[in-house]
Amino acid sequence: VARRLALTLAYDGTDFHGWQVQPGRATVQGLVLEAARRVLGGAVKVTGASRTDAGVHALRQVASLETLSPMPAATLRRALNAVLPPTIRVIDAVEAPPGFDARRHARAKRYAYLIDRAPEADPFLRRFAWHAPHCRDTGAMAAALPAVRGKHDFSALCAAPGRGRTPVCTVGSARLLGRRSRLVILVSADSFLHHMVRNLVGSLAEVGRGARPPEWLGDVLLGRDRRRAGPTAPAQGLTLLRVLYPRAG
Amino acid sequence: VARRLALTLAYDGTDFHGWQVQPGRATVQGLVLEAARRVLGGAVKVTGASRTDAGVHALRQVASLETLSPMPAATLRRALNAVLPPTIRVIDAVEAPPGFDARRHARAKRYAYLIDRAPEADPFLRRFAWHAPHCRDTGAMAAALPAVRGKHDFSALCAAPGRGRTPVCTVGSARLLGRRSRLVILVSADSFLHHMVRNLVGSLAEVGRGARPPEWLGDVLLGRDRRRAGPTAPAQGLTLLRVLYPRAG
Repeated sequence: VARRLALTLAYDGTDFHGWQVQPGRATVQGLVLEAARRVLGGAVKVTGASRTDAGVHALRQVASLETLSPMPAATLRRALNAVLPPTIRVIDAVEAPPGFDARRHARAKRYAYLIDRAPEADPFLRRFAWHAPHCRDTGAMAAALPAVRGKHDFSALCAAPGRGRTPVCTVGSARLLGRRSRLVILVSADSFLHHMVRNLVGSLAEVGRGARPPEWLGDVLLGRDRRRAGPTAPAQGLTLLRVLYPRAG
Repeated sequence: VARRLALTLAYDGTDFHGWQVQPGRATVQGLVLEAARRVLGGAVKVTGASRTDAGVHALRQVASLETLSPMPAATLRRALNAVLPPTIRVIDAVEAPPGFDARRHARAKRYAYLIDRAPEADPFLRRFAWHAPHCRDTGAMAAALPAVRGKHDFSALCAAPGRGRTPVCTVGSARLLGRRSRLVILVSADSFLHHMVRNLVGSLAEVGRGARPPEWLGDVLLGRDRRRAGPTAPAQGLTLLRVLYPRAG
């Protein structure tokens, strides 16, 4: 039986075509896989908890790694970091129980979306925030947000419905922080549909610029029609913060 | 008499060869000058309060701009931002008194130096911090820092003495914040010598890694010999925070 490790990864997604391996393109999974093959030799499998899109960042992505190599976890962490580009870091590497699957076993994920509302885009946040000075009414945005809390059909905020997956997710918390030039929208849920956070933020921005009232977001959800929601907010504002797992038992 | 404006600039210095105009190289002053000539036409002069080095950032650099154009300041701000790269932003543009010189009239400047002490370099701080996990003893670093406060001859921390300038500066405050993986060293002074903050940080790091005792920094200053101080800390950790001017009167 192959050994399993849990890797905790941080990356600045700006220069990558997302998490998932794609032939001929620099992706985070592809680079981690390549580094692991070089360091460990032999067959290696890497599965990420979240398939982050191109341009999306991660503070604490979790990936399961399958290998037959006996290399100690701490040695593996250092060896991977020596090979990976500086925009991808292995923060932690630990032994995981047999059969551990970072994606299937995840109980919840938490994302943050950063909005820069300053009149002129902050040059330091260029890679990590959406410059949206039109998000003027943060009170209305905060009032709209509770509509997404709880268990709902999120088809209205989903880029590609179907694919055999249920569009029902349970949002544990959805909060808006900050009132001055920087806003953070924090969302945690048991699962996320494709573009769900970015479509939520794009819809909140419609409320923030006064084009829609706060109640509109709840109506959009009930309508389950993607075309009624706001546009997709850009990738660079989105960061995967954490992946939560059930306590080992 | 030419009209003077005061520009407040923010920039991510990563991609520039510092502030000062250099033929054939992208510099912040060079790009602002080029943008201002394009927008205003005719002769334009731009003087920065601080000649930041290659790779050094600014949250609030101040530059005086001399022009004969009557373009309103707010229009100029927007026009410059439309032409400048996104890594340089004009945060503010206001009318200044006749003869205003951002450099000569500055009363004090404040810099921050960011150190990332995490075992693996944070990919999000790569452009803005020095990864120095060896700075273990922050207590010793904090104990060394007060030696630079007040009026001193800073020849020991100066890259290029002479040039007709006095090596005497008055450091109004020097503080170390943060205890966990991120440290910030804040220094304000009436003037700064070339590489002064980076040489101070490089010397503090010698104390932080236990190679020197805290008292050593005061001795180094008294010795006025650059060769006795620590190495120059890298540029990317340094950010010009603010330039202070006397109250208009």
